[in-house]
Amino acid sequence: MTAMTAMTAEKSIPQDAIEHIRESSPLIHHITNYVTVNDCANICLAIGASPVMADALGEAAGIAGIASAVVLNMGTLNERTISSMLAAGKAANEQGIPVVFDPVGVGASALRNETAAEILETVHISVLRGNSSEIRCLSGLASKTRGVDASSEDMGAPSEAASIAQELAGRLNCVVAITGAVDVVSDGTKTVMIENGHAFLQRLTGTGCMCSTLVGSCLGALAYDPFGATLTALLVMGIAGEVAFENAGLAGTGSYRMALHDAVSNMDTQMLKNMARIREV
Amino acid sequence: MTAMTAMTAEKSIPQDAIEHIRESSPLIHHITNYVTVNDCANICLAIGASPVMADALGEAAGIAGIASAVVLNMGTLNERTISSMLAAGKAANEQGIPVVFDPVGVGASALRNETAAEILETVHISVLRGNSSEIRCLSGLASKTRGVDASSEDMGAPSEAASIAQELAGRLNCVVAITGAVDVVSDGTKTVMIENGHAFLQRLTGTGCMCSTLVGSCLGALAYDPFGATLTALLVMGIAGEVAFENAGLAGTGSYRMALHDAVSNMDTQMLKNMARIREV
Amino acid sequence: MTAMTAMTAEKSIPQDAIEHIRESSPLIHHITNYVTVNDCANICLAIGASPVMADALGEAAGIAGIASAVVLNMGTLNERTISSMLAAGKAANEQGIPVVFDPVGVGASALRNETAAEILETVHISVLRGNSSEIRCLSGLASKTRGVDASSEDMGAPSEAASIAQELAGRLNCVVAITGAVDVVSDGTKTVMIENGHAFLQRLTGTGCMCSTLVGSCLGALAYDPFGATLTALLVMGIAGEVAFENAGLAGTGSYRMALHDAVSNMDTQMLKNMARIREV
Repeated sequence: MTAMTAMTAEKSIPQDAIEHIRESSPLIHHITNYVTVNDCANICLAIGASPVMADALGEAAGIAGIASAVVLNMGTLNERTISSMLAAGKAANEQGIPVVFDPVGVGASALRNETAAEILETVHISVLRGNSSEIRCLSGLASKTRGVDASSEDMGAPSEAASIAQELAGRLNCVVAITGAVDVVSDGTKTVMIENGHAFLQRLTGTGCMCSTLVGSCLGALAYDPFGATLTALLVMGIAGEVAFENAGLAGTGSYRMALHDAVSNMDTQMLKNMARIREV
Repeated sequence: MTAMTAMTAEKSIPQDAIEHIRESSPLIHHITNYVTVNDCANICLAIGASPVMADALGEAAGIAGIASAVVLNMGTLNERTISSMLAAGKAANEQGIPVVFDPVGVGASALRNETAAEILETVHISVLRGNSSEIRCLSGLASKTRGVDASSEDMGAPSEAASIAQELAGRLNCVVAITGAVDVVSDGTKTVMIENGHAFLQRLTGTGCMCSTLVGSCLGALAYDPFGATLTALLVMGIAGEVAFENAGLAGTGSYRMALHDAVSNMDTQMLKNMARIREV
Repeated sequence: MTAMTAMTAEKSIPQDAIEHIRESSPLIHHITNYVTVNDCANICLAIGASPVMADALGEAAGIAGIASAVVLNMGTLNERTISSMLAAGKAANEQGIPVVFDPVGVGASALRNETAAEILETVHISVLRGNSSEIRCLSGLASKTRGVDASSEDMGAPSEAASIAQELAGRLNCVVAITGAVDVVSDGTKTVMIENGHAFLQRLTGTGCMCSTLVGSCLGALAYDPFGATLTALLVMGIAGEVAFENAGLAGTGSYRMALHDAVSNMDTQMLKNMARIREV
């Protein structure tokens, strides 16, 4: 494992990544949970993309087909929205529109396990993003997930996460991102670790969901580089988490949440490059 | 087109409009989307009304019947909530309770087009509020809606929006409001333009939905004057958008959102009259 | 009625109550409404518990079975979620997991009345929390509920609320909490009044729902003392409401909401003891 120089960060982040999102304002279709959906819509706007949430089976595929990226998040899945997720995913695949999958809480119930399996079998995913418990579970490893947060027992060493991400990325032919104290991104060949972020992010609901929305937003504008788009999204979240803590974290979680949205809305590519702490595995 | 004097603004805004809402605390029934519903409930309280959201078919009509106004917002419509919207709208009509319709994303899918058409055929609407793409679509004009935000190609000149609003208001026998950089309100006879607002409002999700909730809140207390109630609601949103930018916009979208709620909660009729920039067409 | 000394407050609040929540991070399963669900998830995290929201019938019981407490909130009930609430409640009962019931808007529709009755017949509730209109309705007394907020006509004297809570707690064999200007908690034997809180809490949506989530969070960590856990939760909300007003209330409801989350996230048991204004009935 070698330290990545600023020059390498310079290379890994797509050129003018954030500015490109703000200029093209890609439409990002979400089928997502009702807990954090408002945060996802606002973070999507904050980074410069345009959110749409539509989960009726009668329109899910159609709206996926006019989007620049589709985000499937199974946080509050039910029979109705599972059908819509499958339909939207298939429609996106048919038209070459990238799909992000956030397998929220997989491992916590048979319904979630079966749904995640069905999505991965039926839909080609461009990016899979989850916490360590979720990704362990999808890799077929033992996981101790309880609810929707990662179990501390599942976190393991970053190097282990890197191996898991790399193996799963190769198997699913997609980019896999594991977010946590250290984030890992792999496309099966390249694997990087991101050391940005702040522990306070765990004190807010929806930071994982927002991260998946940011992946969708970056992917919508930078579809030619799924790895770079995913890396960019994780850097946005991690660095915004640091900036927000600096600006408001000591006041409490309400202020921190506001400052997190502020930080994303003020982000630009240069700030990412200046603050990125990434290293190749 | 003539500049409206302060005296005309004085006449168009119902007397003690905001104070009347705060004193009577009208119950505003919403069948609305799960993306922005929390913002709608809080903005309803901020202006002094009392929100209730109930979308089960088994109670939608009954609760509409005890409300002072009903807001139908099809942002995340599905088979279940479409039936409830129709039932609530009909119940409101039978009891003379005003109905606000927000045709979110009409033009983006056949399901939305059909639902909007069915609501307009089945329910008499007191106020229709949408963005330029949505209102163009309902007028039978070409529109380039994608998702839930107005297409910049649909915005056209304010004078064109005024004609569209006036024609549609006459046809539907209701007040039509088109919100955007310049807002237009028409009852088919009188038409005014509102130049208040701030571009930053576009950077938050739900400002359109909140605007429809404010229309419902004003209408619940000022049902004798649907035109004045709609004008008041649009002024509240536009002026709050200006005040919020002044107070917090430079900090980012999280701070701006908080400041927007603050500004609505501090609004009074005198502030509306002092800051209104409206002109008759 | 005697004034409670600081020493009595010292005895009523479980030892290290808040610290115990923060250390054990109990999983709190919610089947709740989509209006305030994000506030509930964030307030759950702010006090140190871990929220999960899962309302599909296929997993509601299973997830209830791995939780430390279950919160059933019927704010936006529908046919689907009613079944899930019953299934989750029964599963919790079978495993001795405490259940909190928030009968939002009971009295406002037959559907809500029937659902609340069915839940109370089918599920043993550990804590019932509602406003005065809701608890009056469940007690079989006349109530003037309209929508989801308490009717001012139903508020009556605190001593009357105390009698109602005590009688209903005895009948249902649970703790009953009535929240309002003065809160009342009774287990049928002990009854206390809490004079903390601030009128500004009424200007936000979801303060009742968040209070029920706090009851669930406290109960998840302090299941051995349902009365003490409920008292603690109500004190957290009331005192946070006072602190938030002090810090930000004059700025408006957006700032107040942020400050409320800040205050809960900064709360500790010593602050509760220092600021509690409780008296035994």
